[in-house]
Amino acid sequence: MQHIDQMLFGLFLLFAAAKLAGEIFERLGQPEVVGEILAGLILGPHALGWVHSGEFLDAIAQLGVIVLLFSVGLETQVGDLRKSGIAATRIAVYGATLSMLFGVGIGHLAGMALTPSLFLGTAIAATSAGVTSRVLSDMGALSSRPGRLIVPAAVVDDILGLLIFAVVYGVGRGSVHWEYVVIALVSAVAFIAIVAIGGAYILREHPRILHRPQIKEGPFILALILCLGLSALASRIGLAAIIGAFIAGVIVAETREQNDIDQQIKPVYAFLVPFFFIVTGMKADISAFADMHLILVGLGITFLAIVGKVVGCGLGALREGKDVALAVGVGMVPRGEVGLIVAGIGLSQGILDARLCTVVVMVVIITTIVTPSLLKRCITRVTG
Amino acid sequence: MQHIDQMLFGLFLLFAAAKLAGEIFERLGQPEVVGEILAGLILGPHALGWVHSGEFLDAIAQLGVIVLLFSVGLETQVGDLRKSGIAATRIAVYGATLSMLFGVGIGHLAGMALTPSLFLGTAIAATSAGVTSRVLSDMGALSSRPGRLIVPAAVVDDILGLLIFAVVYGVGRGSVHWEYVVIALVSAVAFIAIVAIGGAYILREHPRILHRPQIKEGPFILALILCLGLSALASRIGLAAIIGAFIAGVIVAETREQNDIDQQIKPVYAFLVPFFFIVTGMKADISAFADMHLILVGLGITFLAIVGKVVGCGLGALREGKDVALAVGVGMVPRGEVGLIVAGIGLSQGILDARLCTVVVMVVIITTIVTPSLLKRCITRVTG
Repeated sequence: MQHIDQMLFGLFLLFAAAKLAGEIFERLGQPEVVGEILAGLILGPHALGWVHSGEFLDAIAQLGVIVLLFSVGLETQVGDLRKSGIAATRIAVYGATLSMLFGVGIGHLAGMALTPSLFLGTAIAATSAGVTSRVLSDMGALSSRPGRLIVPAAVVDDILGLLIFAVVYGVGRGSVHWEYVVIALVSAVAFIAIVAIGGAYILREHPRILHRPQIKEGPFILALILCLGLSALASRIGLAAIIGAFIAGVIVAETREQNDIDQQIKPVYAFLVPFFFIVTGMKADISAFADMHLILVGLGITFLAIVGKVVGCGLGALREGKDVALAVGVGMVPRGEVGLIVAGIGLSQGILDARLCTVVVMVVIITTIVTPSLLKRCITRVTG
Repeated sequence: MQHIDQMLFGLFLLFAAAKLAGEIFERLGQPEVVGEILAGLILGPHALGWVHSGEFLDAIAQLGVIVLLFSVGLETQVGDLRKSGIAATRIAVYGATLSMLFGVGIGHLAGMALTPSLFLGTAIAATSAGVTSRVLSDMGALSSRPGRLIVPAAVVDDILGLLIFAVVYGVGRGSVHWEYVVIALVSAVAFIAIVAIGGAYILREHPRILHRPQIKEGPFILALILCLGLSALASRIGLAAIIGAFIAGVIVAETREQNDIDQQIKPVYAFLVPFFFIVTGMKADISAFADMHLILVGLGITFLAIVGKVVGCGLGALREGKDVALAVGVGMVPRGEVGLIVAGIGLSQGILDARLCTVVVMVVIITTIVTPSLLKRCITRVTG
């Protein structure tokens, strides 16, 4: 009973504070999501300490980002994906490569050994599909030209990040399992191709299939089962769960119920998605900001992380025109889960020290907080 | 990562199985909720063992029952509550008293000491507001005459159950803290009166208040914050969280947005509520059913638990006519959380032995599985 009591109180406090902060940011013309991150940061264990993270909050945050990518998928057409696939891959590869090079380079210049430099590079290589999608979704810009490039590029980027990590992790342990890397790449491509194209085909050919169940909210429940199932499957074969959730959304988007399910996922989104951003904020240790030297190093690496994506991804999207290229570059800036995971594993294996790990968290927080406002301006410039 | 992987897989498996079982039951003309309980029972740790309960599942189940009672509250009018308050209290008191007497009596006849007998009585005294509300909601019978009596009676019953437990727990420890019991009773009544009547008054006088926020889904988010906040508050002052959730629903029902919010809570309900019933099923240890003697004792006590509510609550509702009285009596039969909590504490304090504890779980499972079909028939007889 005591336990449930605390759980409820924590949920209430975080949700109310996040929404209050979101409301303030919204009124200031800033993105709501920044308010949510800051609310988590302020109430979290490293600042006020009113709410502590735990198994339950982490799980709710994961469910939140799954619901987020599912609803992003719901607004994505398979046809669009096929059209923008090559451009998205180019954007992802350029941006991740340049960011990685910057990270390894600065590690080398600072006199670090190869392995920790590689870890640092990997940690800042991958874009957070979550933050980017949320900002686009809040602006209603998922189907704008930059939106149609950023979302698939962020998904490809997530896969790339996991592949790079597999290689770097092998280097760290003294042996790279190339066969594992190849298997991971093949299974990622196969998973997406078979599931997305096959699933969409089945649902398009059998438009009444979602109406088969007689239980209440049948189509919505089948969509949820597909979302949970593909997320679990993607996670199990070594991909990120959110890739499965995104594909589930893309599949459901091919059905006639797309619009109904899009309406029904909105309240679930409103309840669960904020927890992903709140929990991200809770992970930030702001006490590190008292160390001037660390701040400077952090700001320097953050700067390179931003330049890496704006220039790398922007070059990848240059054929679309300068304004779109800039919007895409900025949209790919935010770092997230992959960076935190790489830093966490690097720390636990003794490859990165605690201070470098804090720097990675700083990169995640700053890029995530800075991007939404910038992206909003860039997108407005494109869509007018 | 491993952790999230297992969490997602467990969620997927439980949700898919519960909905499949629910669909089968629905097609057989039986209540969907029974399928959900059985799915949990079969996949759970005591049968197939494919999914194990843990902090996260327990918390999701609690969120589920909170959303359930919130949406029941949303379909309840404050005016109705005021009208049926006295009848509901009479129904709750008669039913809980008779069930308690049966429990204590059978303990006495079996040669048990006073304290364990009192624990047994308490464990079978309180109705589960969750099961009853879910069945009424599935049938669309929340606003039928029996529905309007059963829901408030189940809420009063929950408060009664907690009060009785406070007394019995004191007896078990050798001293009853009557001042605690009085404080609990007063705070329960004050909480409900102040919050429900005051909150509903404020929202009725300021009909635009829910539209103040500029963030997306503003009114729905304010309603969720109210629901989480009152649940946490009710839980903190020693009431059940679901009482706070119910009152939050009753308050929101007074606003113009009642209809919109009712529509928006439905998808959240579809996702979260089943987990409450799945987790209830997972707690059942069916290996106990191999012990013939235990089965007979369990069936005997279950029989008395059913008679206690049908006769007790039926007598309390007799002025409404025989058919309504029968429906109310049957509707109050299911036992749930309170019984499991009392049995759990009795076991951990060495007052109840493990076998008697299993009997209480048996009462919970059987009454919960048996009631929905019976209630469906009784309600149909009343509403025609």
